[in-house]
Amino acid sequence: MILRMSSLFLRTLREDPADAEVPSHKLLVRAGYIRRTAPGMYTWLPLGLRVLRNVEKIVREEMDAIGAQELVFPALLPREPYEATGRWTEYGPNLFRLKDRKGADMLLGPTHEEMFTLAVKDLYSSYKDLPLSIYQIQNKYRDEARPRAGVLRGREFVMKDSYSFDVDQAGLQASYDLHRKAYIRIFDRLGFDYVIVQAMSGAMGGSASEEFLAVAENGEDTFVRSPGGYAANVEAVVVPQSPPVDASAVPAAEVVDTPDTPTIDTLVETLNAKHPRTDGRQWTAADTLKNVLVTLVHPDGTREPLAIGVPGDRAIDEKRLGAQVEPAEVVAFDDAEFAKNPALARGYIGPGALGKDSESGIRYLLDPRVAEGSAWVTGANKTGFHVINLVHGRDFTADGTIQAAEVHDGDEAPDGSGPLQSARGIEMGHIFQLGQKYAEALDLKVLDQNGKLVTVTMGSYGVGVTRAVAAIAEGNHDELGLIWPREITPADVHLVATGKETEVFAKAAELATELESRGLTVLYDDREKVSPGVKFKDAELLGIPTIAVVGKGLADGTIEVKDRRSGDRTDVAVTEVVDKLVEVVRG
Amino acid sequence: MILRMSSLFLRTLREDPADAEVPSHKLLVRAGYIRRTAPGMYTWLPLGLRVLRNVEKIVREEMDAIGAQELVFPALLPREPYEATGRWTEYGPNLFRLKDRKGADMLLGPTHEEMFTLAVKDLYSSYKDLPLSIYQIQNKYRDEARPRAGVLRGREFVMKDSYSFDVDQAGLQASYDLHRKAYIRIFDRLGFDYVIVQAMSGAMGGSASEEFLAVAENGEDTFVRSPGGYAANVEAVVVPQSPPVDASAVPAAEVVDTPDTPTIDTLVETLNAKHPRTDGRQWTAADTLKNVLVTLVHPDGTREPLAIGVPGDRAIDEKRLGAQVEPAEVVAFDDAEFAKNPALARGYIGPGALGKDSESGIRYLLDPRVAEGSAWVTGANKTGFHVINLVHGRDFTADGTIQAAEVHDGDEAPDGSGPLQSARGIEMGHIFQLGQKYAEALDLKVLDQNGKLVTVTMGSYGVGVTRAVAAIAEGNHDELGLIWPREITPADVHLVATGKETEVFAKAAELATELESRGLTVLYDDREKVSPGVKFKDAELLGIPTIAVVGKGLADGTIEVKDRRSGDRTDVAVTEVVDKLVEVVRG
Repeated sequence: MILRMSSLFLRTLREDPADAEVPSHKLLVRAGYIRRTAPGMYTWLPLGLRVLRNVEKIVREEMDAIGAQELVFPALLPREPYEATGRWTEYGPNLFRLKDRKGADMLLGPTHEEMFTLAVKDLYSSYKDLPLSIYQIQNKYRDEARPRAGVLRGREFVMKDSYSFDVDQAGLQASYDLHRKAYIRIFDRLGFDYVIVQAMSGAMGGSASEEFLAVAENGEDTFVRSPGGYAANVEAVVVPQSPPVDASAVPAAEVVDTPDTPTIDTLVETLNAKHPRTDGRQWTAADTLKNVLVTLVHPDGTREPLAIGVPGDRAIDEKRLGAQVEPAEVVAFDDAEFAKNPALARGYIGPGALGKDSESGIRYLLDPRVAEGSAWVTGANKTGFHVINLVHGRDFTADGTIQAAEVHDGDEAPDGSGPLQSARGIEMGHIFQLGQKYAEALDLKVLDQNGKLVTVTMGSYGVGVTRAVAAIAEGNHDELGLIWPREITPADVHLVATGKETEVFAKAAELATELESRGLTVLYDDREKVSPGVKFKDAELLGIPTIAVVGKGLADGTIEVKDRRSGDRTDVAVTEVVDKLVEVVRG
Repeated sequence: MILRMSSLFLRTLREDPADAEVPSHKLLVRAGYIRRTAPGMYTWLPLGLRVLRNVEKIVREEMDAIGAQELVFPALLPREPYEATGRWTEYGPNLFRLKDRKGADMLLGPTHEEMFTLAVKDLYSSYKDLPLSIYQIQNKYRDEARPRAGVLRGREFVMKDSYSFDVDQAGLQASYDLHRKAYIRIFDRLGFDYVIVQAMSGAMGGSASEEFLAVAENGEDTFVRSPGGYAANVEAVVVPQSPPVDASAVPAAEVVDTPDTPTIDTLVETLNAKHPRTDGRQWTAADTLKNVLVTLVHPDGTREPLAIGVPGDRAIDEKRLGAQVEPAEVVAFDDAEFAKNPALARGYIGPGALGKDSESGIRYLLDPRVAEGSAWVTGANKTGFHVINLVHGRDFTADGTIQAAEVHDGDEAPDGSGPLQSARGIEMGHIFQLGQKYAEALDLKVLDQNGKLVTVTMGSYGVGVTRAVAAIAEGNHDELGLIWPREITPADVHLVATGKETEVFAKAAELATELESRGLTVLYDDREKVSPGVKFKDAELLGIPTIAVVGKGLADGTIEVKDRRSGDRTDVAVTEVVDKLVEVVRG
């Protein structure tokens, strides 16, 4: 195939679009691959669509290779199945909802668990029908509060979503492992620097869960990894419960006056000044127990206060907390809430005022670092006063623990494999063992070998297809433009004809035809009144991995072949250039 | 590729689905190609999706062959461009509208004229950039009042829509002709019996317009054709204005008493009994002028009465009338409307009470058969009375003409090419010269050769892709099931292993692998505990054009090869069967 620049529906831009923050967004727009239609909505122009289709092809090939079968559900869906699983409500404002002309509630599918489950229920009834893996590559919709970074987080986007169906956990594990291997092949082929991390399962329920993250500075996800091989999405890090310590030598708890110390810093300073430790150490933030109040807003709109106790040297991580309380949303504990709870002395709140059995009745959860028997400085529930030597289990208890404190670089990995280091990534794939949540809600059962009805066990596996294009761009560019990996590139060779000589254009046209006949896709810059400089700039920007320039060298019988990534240039004899380019492209 | 029936996500049904009326719907559901998800919404199961992709592939290849470039717009769109062209309102209840989380109005695209126009405006600015043809293959949405016949008229469906952009009418004509040729190739390859008819341009505006109709008993569209080659959608038939006739010999108009004659039949009977003609002929319905009142409801909700005068031997054709008054809808002229217009004597309404300049002020349009100078019997605007010898132009006038009367079999074709005969069809494609409607509304201009801004001229070209699958099924089935055309079939060969012998299954598996290695897609019925009868029934139902049966004949070294369409069976030597099948498939 030959794509001619003279007629290609494409305009490259020299300036970054005003709304673009990250390189992939800037470059995909500037190079004419995508155009913004509305917030979070993009049009895929011809070259962009070719890239998107290449990604889809890789995903499809690897899904087919593990025996998964492709089908496609509608994107516009009826409310009922989503009502049955609770997701109609749980999805909150992220769901695009509408009514049809008869007033029936409908939605634009954010994910299709319900439809996959119902399809299997519709067609299958026996363990003999399983295992089954089915998938689709399709438009998905999420009404993101902050669509950003072009197609990295859009409101309409393409996903590959597959589901596996098995009679038991052993079957699910096998299906999961198959998908995991397929995903490794997919992401290897897509040309990502990626990492597989332990993940939370999110609003979709389930247990074992891993994410494939493209490592990228501009990623929205933070993950941590250790030298020993531990890797987890920061939301999924499970800090182990600190073992009990002996509190027998800890003196009785004592209320001390700490005027004007609503913050940990002021508290530590005041303590060291007015109430120095007896063991010669200084008080530090790590000795204090900070009690943070938040309000949970549940999907049905009800509000619930929640108190979290964490060592004073750590803040609450909003994403970690959010992941723990999903589908509830976390909002500030505001003045109105304080007014309802007069027992809470703002800035001086201690465990005594918290917990289900306390006067406030506010649920109180502790960071797992707060060991049984450990002693703390914490609020005395009286403005200007704190209590020291307050021992967990002796002087106070809580309603449970929560994984909500920040993870710090240098923290030991939960599996003891060394210190954690954080980095940022883009979630490209997610595989997880969904279990029976949807099968139970929608009554998907099959007869087992003994003729008994058993609930089917499901796995869920997603790849962000449009997002992959952005993530590949994010990881494959330089200051001049994009650099597509070989399997993704919209054309194999960018053939540039420079100058005004008709021989140049005649030779270039001939080469384009020869390359096409060898099965290559050629982006041929045949524009007549465009300067070589502009053509070269466009070639760098567009990012086809191999650039061949027909120009001055032609007089000496050579064509310049340039590798876009390395910048290496070679003059190749005209007579050999087609073979050479085929060789370069085919690897 | 080998698709194994033992694991294929498929269940065939022996009974027709309760909601299916037409063969394609019944068979596509029974054969497990599609499943209904909600009214007018269908899931494409693996075999169905393969068929759909084959149709898409043909459409894409033929579009690419004429240099059209593929891109893809979002399906979920902002209101503003549709507001600018008036379609936000004009589309009425057929448009799925919704609000996003910020309250912005959005819609699910029914067609994308606005987006195509804006994309070209965004990228192009000069006549040198044109001509341009761009297209997409994408989900479209229309909230049909009566979704019917499975995927023949769904609410979510796949369309290929392309648009051409030219600087002038000559360019548009060239683009139109290119598309017309591409469409002929597409519909030839799809295996339709189709006809190209003159068409109305519908709500989309424009002038020259042709439809590609699949000839089908169950089609929703009526078209007419003549022996001389005229063919038109019935809405598009333009009856020529009858030339003036000499009225000098017609006596003066005369009011006659015609009690109890509110219908044409009773009127004719009474006239012949009480007021016989003086020329010896009998009065017939064709001598009468029937004045029909309707109410137009405009998109903005305003109501407008309309009177139509037609010869009494013809009824108003609702579709023809509807097409003339679009985007207004036609509803009955009800009691309330009569109450507002006391001058109208129900059942005896004559031209004198109608017209913009009459007391009622109701717009009055005549069938073009009502020639200047022709004399009519019509209502005298007085209950129980009619007027005879009322001459058009002498005794009454109207506000214009309208193409709203029924077209009858035997009517002369407008181009004089012989008597018209009607038939039914399914609209599969529509090409038309849209002109400047959208370019004007959205201000799409380019600089011409003289540096002057000119408005771009557009053509619009659509193919119903999901509908094509149904239309192909509608035209390619028998009482046993589907019969796919070679280019559309989800598999090349349906290989059936019958009996219980392991040799049979071993040989069948070997053949499947050999056929796959020769590039064929094999649907292999490898089910072990399923009777030959059930397998044969499934094979007939699924409709793969070539069926190979590995069974009893194997002992004699033969495989039965059956042509699904003709029913012809041949025993082929095992050693030759692969070559034979490749030959049959490759044609």
